[in-house]
Amino acid sequence: MSRLYDRVALIGLGLIASSMAHAIRQAGLAGEVAGYDIDAGHRETAREIGLCDVICDSAAEAAQGADLVMLCVPVGAMGAVAEDIAPVLKPGATVSDTGSVKRAVIDAVVPALPDGVHFIAGHPLAGTEQSGPRAGFAALFSGRWCILVPNGAPQAAQDRLAAFWTGMGAHVDWMDADHHDLVLAVTSHTPHLIAYTMVGVADDLGRVTDSEVVKYSAAGFRDFTRIAASDPTMWRDVFLSNKEATLEILGRFTEELFALQRAIRTGDGQQLHDYFTRTRAIRRGIIEAGQDTAAPDFGRGGGTKAGGGNA
Amino acid sequence: MSRLYDRVALIGLGLIASSMAHAIRQAGLAGEVAGYDIDAGHRETAREIGLCDVICDSAAEAAQGADLVMLCVPVGAMGAVAEDIAPVLKPGATVSDTGSVKRAVIDAVVPALPDGVHFIAGHPLAGTEQSGPRAGFAALFSGRWCILVPNGAPQAAQDRLAAFWTGMGAHVDWMDADHHDLVLAVTSHTPHLIAYTMVGVADDLGRVTDSEVVKYSAAGFRDFTRIAASDPTMWRDVFLSNKEATLEILGRFTEELFALQRAIRTGDGQQLHDYFTRTRAIRRGIIEAGQDTAAPDFGRGGGTKAGGGNA
Repeated sequence: MSRLYDRVALIGLGLIASSMAHAIRQAGLAGEVAGYDIDAGHRETAREIGLCDVICDSAAEAAQGADLVMLCVPVGAMGAVAEDIAPVLKPGATVSDTGSVKRAVIDAVVPALPDGVHFIAGHPLAGTEQSGPRAGFAALFSGRWCILVPNGAPQAAQDRLAAFWTGMGAHVDWMDADHHDLVLAVTSHTPHLIAYTMVGVADDLGRVTDSEVVKYSAAGFRDFTRIAASDPTMWRDVFLSNKEATLEILGRFTEELFALQRAIRTGDGQQLHDYFTRTRAIRRGIIEAGQDTAAPDFGRGGGTKAGGGNA
Repeated sequence: MSRLYDRVALIGLGLIASSMAHAIRQAGLAGEVAGYDIDAGHRETAREIGLCDVICDSAAEAAQGADLVMLCVPVGAMGAVAEDIAPVLKPGATVSDTGSVKRAVIDAVVPALPDGVHFIAGHPLAGTEQSGPRAGFAALFSGRWCILVPNGAPQAAQDRLAAFWTGMGAHVDWMDADHHDLVLAVTSHTPHLIAYTMVGVADDLGRVTDSEVVKYSAAGFRDFTRIAASDPTMWRDVFLSNKEATLEILGRFTEELFALQRAIRTGDGQQLHDYFTRTRAIRRGIIEAGQDTAAPDFGRGGGTKAGGGNA
């Protein structure tokens, strides 16, 4: 892979940026990678493990002279970072981001940027429930989708950023910001909120002890706790900045849930059976699309067949 | 491991019974294993793969002369099977089951059994989203909990059944039927209903195509589809027969969900952040209890670090 950018700046050294640092280095995509995190401890850790070529003490220092500045901070912090770095941005530079919401990020970042600097919004659909500069690994994006929003940037800048993500192992798709936000509300944001809620309910229930919840949490619930262990700040910002789509999907979700709840209350076994039969088809589609394997696993990992489903 | 029963009958040759057949054979827990399934195709498959020592053409034939009869059928079919086998049961035999609900099974099975036959209800907390006689594997119960409900059986019968499950690799706990049903409503039944619902909503949404749902379903939603791919008949029966506890937990769930929904609508970031921070603790408890690993995986399996979380 040939070098695509002379200098890349990674702002916010969490799971995504630290994985990018490893992947960029592995594929030789940049001449130099500069990093910055608002947390001094994270900067210290990043220096210790040699995450980037240089770790700077301000976002502007990292962004100065960069051909590509990646904003890898929580969605709610994007606008402030853009204002910080705007005065030092190189003419013709590309600014991009890795936030989970796209419309709100575009609205916050674009007005802060100087003329001649292009913003292309981005969202790699990859991650784990772990965070911080030690959480990253080069293969995080391998075979995963990265959605990019062109936002009127020149074709050459779009092509270069797409090649950059492809170089890190991702498949690239282009999408409108609003459609991205709706799709992600369905496939990610609402499911996360539901998982958080269910884990909270379990914790609250006086008659079932926490140790029982922990001890007997196979399958379904264990997957929920994994989801619900994700970074609180990141997820707070996701829900606040993708409010409309999340509330719309939540409304549909509770409508459906009430219908199933009613079927349980009235003993309508046929309705339940029909519903559960239909949902099997989507799972098959996901396996056929190569987004998961048919191997029984239930989040246990380790590659054995000792899966964890239960009822 | 020494032989615990001369003849074990497995009624219903799905994932659980077929895994038991492998585990019993591997550990030498029974002199003979007889199997029966109501589906002629499943009986044929079981014969082809040599799942049991003998596959019978009726439940009564399988149960005849057995020291242990395991009912591994959907919860709603337990009572009818008990009636079928009652006339041939050996005096002193133990009947048990593997259903996901315990009160309803006890109420359905016990009245059908003759005097001198003991019913000890059971529930191994293990499974995958796959079903049928080919789905089983010997390690399914390894390190997982099996909850047993003594139901007044003699101590010797209880000890023997506990040794049987331990011999298949499980840890055994004894519990009251009603408490079991509440604990499982929290840790398994309600999470499954929620996952089914969310997958159904995604499928219904006209503006997001099924292919987009499939393509961009990393993390949260992919875990949901795995859960929602479980056997429809089994789950229909679970909800119909654990109605009260499920409806109670669903009520609490929607109450909490509405509170978070309101926080999103009003932009109360502090409430969201506090809630999401709290749910992280339960996840840590589950890892510390050895029910899962800290490795980032998100249901992808394969033992690599290429996990699939995203937002």
